[in-house]
Amino acid sequence: MAIMPITDSLFLLAESREHPMHVGGLQLYELPEGAGPDYVSELHRELVGAVDVRPLFRRRPMNPVSSLGQVAWMNDDDLDLEYHVRLSALPRPGRVRELLELTSRLHGSLLDRHRPLWEFTLIEGLEGNRFATYAKVHHSLLDGVSALRLLQKSLSPDPDERDMRPIWSPKVRTDASNRRVEADGAPPFQVLRAAATAVREIAGLGPTAVKVINDAFREQSAMLAFKAPKSIFNVPITGARRFAAQGWPLERIKTVRKAVSGATLNDVMLAMCSGALRRYLIELDALPEKPLVAAIPMSLRTDTARAATEGTVGGNAVGIILCNLATDVDDPAVRLAEIRASMLKGKEVYQGLSQLQVTALSAIPMAPLAIATIPGALRITPATFNLLISNVPGPHSPLYWNGARMTGVYPLSIPYEGQALNITVTTYAGNLQFGLTGCRRSVPHLQRLLTHLEDSLSELEKAVAG
Amino acid sequence: MAIMPITDSLFLLAESREHPMHVGGLQLYELPEGAGPDYVSELHRELVGAVDVRPLFRRRPMNPVSSLGQVAWMNDDDLDLEYHVRLSALPRPGRVRELLELTSRLHGSLLDRHRPLWEFTLIEGLEGNRFATYAKVHHSLLDGVSALRLLQKSLSPDPDERDMRPIWSPKVRTDASNRRVEADGAPPFQVLRAAATAVREIAGLGPTAVKVINDAFREQSAMLAFKAPKSIFNVPITGARRFAAQGWPLERIKTVRKAVSGATLNDVMLAMCSGALRRYLIELDALPEKPLVAAIPMSLRTDTARAATEGTVGGNAVGIILCNLATDVDDPAVRLAEIRASMLKGKEVYQGLSQLQVTALSAIPMAPLAIATIPGALRITPATFNLLISNVPGPHSPLYWNGARMTGVYPLSIPYEGQALNITVTTYAGNLQFGLTGCRRSVPHLQRLLTHLEDSLSELEKAVAG
Repeated sequence: MAIMPITDSLFLLAESREHPMHVGGLQLYELPEGAGPDYVSELHRELVGAVDVRPLFRRRPMNPVSSLGQVAWMNDDDLDLEYHVRLSALPRPGRVRELLELTSRLHGSLLDRHRPLWEFTLIEGLEGNRFATYAKVHHSLLDGVSALRLLQKSLSPDPDERDMRPIWSPKVRTDASNRRVEADGAPPFQVLRAAATAVREIAGLGPTAVKVINDAFREQSAMLAFKAPKSIFNVPITGARRFAAQGWPLERIKTVRKAVSGATLNDVMLAMCSGALRRYLIELDALPEKPLVAAIPMSLRTDTARAATEGTVGGNAVGIILCNLATDVDDPAVRLAEIRASMLKGKEVYQGLSQLQVTALSAIPMAPLAIATIPGALRITPATFNLLISNVPGPHSPLYWNGARMTGVYPLSIPYEGQALNITVTTYAGNLQFGLTGCRRSVPHLQRLLTHLEDSLSELEKAVAG
Repeated sequence: MAIMPITDSLFLLAESREHPMHVGGLQLYELPEGAGPDYVSELHRELVGAVDVRPLFRRRPMNPVSSLGQVAWMNDDDLDLEYHVRLSALPRPGRVRELLELTSRLHGSLLDRHRPLWEFTLIEGLEGNRFATYAKVHHSLLDGVSALRLLQKSLSPDPDERDMRPIWSPKVRTDASNRRVEADGAPPFQVLRAAATAVREIAGLGPTAVKVINDAFREQSAMLAFKAPKSIFNVPITGARRFAAQGWPLERIKTVRKAVSGATLNDVMLAMCSGALRRYLIELDALPEKPLVAAIPMSLRTDTARAATEGTVGGNAVGIILCNLATDVDDPAVRLAEIRASMLKGKEVYQGLSQLQVTALSAIPMAPLAIATIPGALRITPATFNLLISNVPGPHSPLYWNGARMTGVYPLSIPYEGQALNITVTTYAGNLQFGLTGCRRSVPHLQRLLTHLEDSLSELEKAVAG
């Protein structure tokens, strides 16, 4: 038994039928050469037959029923691997559409608190000689960034490697080739985890302390000339989810980037989102007059040596930047420029601050999110943004699972009370992969956003070419 | 808006992650002649395309989040049929094993209270040129018996009939041929509903009133020479479910019946259960020394004219009979005889009682079940039985859905706190169909009970032949 830190138990205490607190990941794989029709079910049989499960994937809440007081972890001595590792199939014709439908349903149900808080589903019947996996893990156990890193570690850059252990087995690969991929690709990027920690730390403070920080932030943020308008995304949510996912070649994003001096890939990604959200809201006759505001978790690394001597931001400090998405602007190039300017301004707020100050400032816009889910708690600030958009770097080079090439990896996140839509993107093998997770009731026709994202990117490309 | 009767809202108030309060039904169909590979997905598209939905399937709880106070129904003006009517598929090889695995998972998740409390899943990929449907409905909306009757009404005895509406559409079939089937087959048999109502009425009484009835029952039941022993089934339960189902020809049951003078088909069914439970518990080294006690809801119809004049049991009065399953006895014929005797004794308790008395008496053994699920409530009696076994008559003749012959229909019920296993059987077209629903953690290897049921029946057959 181990007492769970309050920072983790909050995710259990705040959870309800309407607010599942798990993150997910959808991975697509090509069937390896020579794979027979029973490849996936044989893989499933192998996986449930394994006996070794790492302690992290064995622990479960000690008092699953109680919703009050300190929560402790205990070891599940009676782990039922067949419960956690599932085999599912897509109905015909097995398109990505059917895959997203199934994933939406899987992501919309609560994890069983009487067991270790994770599920892993193998999905067969995907057209184009592919199969998929959907992983689901409670936020109190692992956040999305850590889960993605663990996934990477469990895969190999070598298409000929076999006998690889699954992610929940004790020995995740640590050989040289794997370390190289990690060095190439994903630096230890803990943006979301740190942001979440900050939220939880603030939520753990008394109201007076929060007010002091809040006032400080109001002062600092006076330079932000905009406020989040009301939108259809900022409503109470229900438990059912809708998920949409698609990847776009990074080359296309890079071409657009050149249109605005100093623009980053992240700025272009935000401009894609902005254009798509604009089209989506116009179609629903629900576009606010004022521009939407997105909360963007950002790594704020500065020169580490300087940071060490001056005590300012260094290492992997994470800030939440409130970005004007300029959804009121029709011209895509102007929209990108406004987003670029807003992101720069947002980063300036954090210049010269200590790590603690960065954490505290970042937590302010997030606090209502965390606090709204605590029964009886007061909202200390009005909603300061319309949706959360996160960019979680993934591996650069193609990875394999026992010879099966992973062709895509898409993150599924947590819509919160008053935040019905979440966009999380990741990069993988030359693609920018979007995962859109929404409350099924509040975000109708979520999948249309994929078309709008494509149209938005085309529009930006035309603006650059013209 | 309509205030929900306390008898219905209790099922909503008592529900938790560990105690979902929905019932289910699994139906198997043969694909009609000439059905192409897209038959099921085309059927799904048709079903979600329909617009008419009966009021019963439109209403949802008004305050889905609150767990206190009176609950009201409201009409869902924004019904999302694509949410309720789902298309799923079995992984290869698509055996009944894979079907039961999927059904177990579907039955183990909570219904979304922000929507009308039902789901209907079409399942393709079942071997042997078949498909399946799984229906799930909250007990506050419809009980298992009513749901089965509604299903029957939505099907046809005519294999050539087409353009039939789904169960949730306003016009369930009421033509002559259908009425005939109903008259042949299932009389309005409301055993379970009435039993549930009784439980709910008793649960609504004050403790003093309950004590009076309780004492009365203790006196009446003094003739019951046994008490329920502790067993592995009488433990706190978790939310995940395991479901197993299989049918046996009624002819085999009928042959065995002749072995014991006066035995009913129901007695033989109970003897099958008893033998199977005995084998199952011996295998787990968990057979109690004393015999298991089952609670059996029974119709107690007597002569209606006499009942009317004497004010005693008439019509469809329902009693809960506590039956000695004789699991301590090795000889199958002796076991059947003991069960027969116990059922007769149980019915005697109810002789000459008024309908109200029957209801009150029946509710006593059920009360701990209902009360155990109410937070903070006291258990007024210890568990008086080990498991609930229900027999719900179904249609005698084969039924069709737009030309697809229904080959099987299996009920899924609700395990309660302290009642980890439920057995519900139904009859259909010459078969006795068993549905076994258990808590996944407390009832390990539930599917082995199917083998044990077959062995138990064979054993009875041999005893008869010998």
